[in-house]
Amino acid sequence: MERKFHEELGNLKRDLLDMGSLARAMVGNAVNGLRDRDADLIRKVHEQEQEINRLQLELDDRCFTLSALHQPTASDLRLIIAVIKITSELERVGDTAVNVAEAAEELLQEPPVKPLIDIPRMADIAQTMVHDSLRSLVNGDIELANAVLRTDDEVDQLRDQVANELVSFMLNDPRTISRALQLLLISRFLERIADHATNIAEDVIFIVKGADVRHGAAVGTQGIASREADEQIKQQGQGQR
Amino acid sequence: MERKFHEELGNLKRDLLDMGSLARAMVGNAVNGLRDRDADLIRKVHEQEQEINRLQLELDDRCFTLSALHQPTASDLRLIIAVIKITSELERVGDTAVNVAEAAEELLQEPPVKPLIDIPRMADIAQTMVHDSLRSLVNGDIELANAVLRTDDEVDQLRDQVANELVSFMLNDPRTISRALQLLLISRFLERIADHATNIAEDVIFIVKGADVRHGAAVGTQGIASREADEQIKQQGQGQR
Repeated sequence: MERKFHEELGNLKRDLLDMGSLARAMVGNAVNGLRDRDADLIRKVHEQEQEINRLQLELDDRCFTLSALHQPTASDLRLIIAVIKITSELERVGDTAVNVAEAAEELLQEPPVKPLIDIPRMADIAQTMVHDSLRSLVNGDIELANAVLRTDDEVDQLRDQVANELVSFMLNDPRTISRALQLLLISRFLERIADHATNIAEDVIFIVKGADVRHGAAVGTQGIASREADEQIKQQGQGQR
Repeated sequence: MERKFHEELGNLKRDLLDMGSLARAMVGNAVNGLRDRDADLIRKVHEQEQEINRLQLELDDRCFTLSALHQPTASDLRLIIAVIKITSELERVGDTAVNVAEAAEELLQEPPVKPLIDIPRMADIAQTMVHDSLRSLVNGDIELANAVLRTDDEVDQLRDQVANELVSFMLNDPRTISRALQLLLISRFLERIADHATNIAEDVIFIVKGADVRHGAAVGTQGIASREADEQIKQQGQGQR
């Protein structure tokens, strides 16, 4: 029973990685489709959205079943709840990739403005952040999760840089305004994808360390939720029953 | 033990409502501060951010403790997991209110462009959606949760309308570009706040109905996670042990 439970937790992590690969592929297809002006590639993002939605429902369902059937310890429960939170982050990465695809479709109706500034680079970084945040979960690698948090600042800087360049563009030639706005929107969407990866990395640090790093909460302040508290909770539970 | 558990679940719901009121107040202060050009009101949003972050940590902690100490049934477990997801939505409403406040602070550095088009109206609707999504949880009111989902379309329409008006603004007078862009950004942030309320309403429908309405999944397809499955899960659990 115990072994089966941990086997299923392992499967869950593996399938979460696959869901992450799909989310990244969606971002890649939307931005590469824009770069290569390839409408077919962009259309693919809409099909992939169905699949990522299906995966979220399936994985969440398995999480609920697992935690209802077994009585997980506090640390396993934290993992299961983190997975449910992460499927929702990944589904939103997918949603946001669809937003990028829609803006790209608008842009394909008109002649190109000019090279896409740092947008492809932002997309690369955001995709890597999604990948690394999930790898940090599977490998229990806090260092990697922390690296994801740091990279988010880089994405914010790129977003500001892209915004400045696009504004001077619009000022120089007001005929580019509506196209420049779509690009501005796309850079905002990519920033949001990086934010989702950041949220995942924070959840990973929370479950691996048993500590809450959100909002700069110090390790140990969340005593009851920490790994060491598993034992304490068990004892309390027995005492009260 | 059982009574204490349900009493604590009740307290959790009540405190979640308070957290929602704080999130709504943050949105209100940011947008009213912009409308009245009141820098003090806008500054308040930054202080409130500390408080909403603290509330998230505290409520999550209580959820983890509750589910580790008691062995909740599938439906109670769904409620607890939904609360953890909802605190994270509300914290992001707060984050997004801070984004609105920052854009408003930029705008206060310059002379006003003109009345704020439909931005105050978008803010009102988004705040009401946050309130209604939480009320639907506390009262188990599926009808209200469904109304929140429908209102989201209205917000999306307002966002498009605001964008169109701002673009014609920029075209007519390119000197307004940077200010119009801040307003555009604010309308996007308000749309995102409405999205968070929509996510909450979907979670509420999920726990009340025991069915997953996300991605148009039909009631009953998530059999194992449904209220009726509580019994089935108990039996399976006993059989396997």
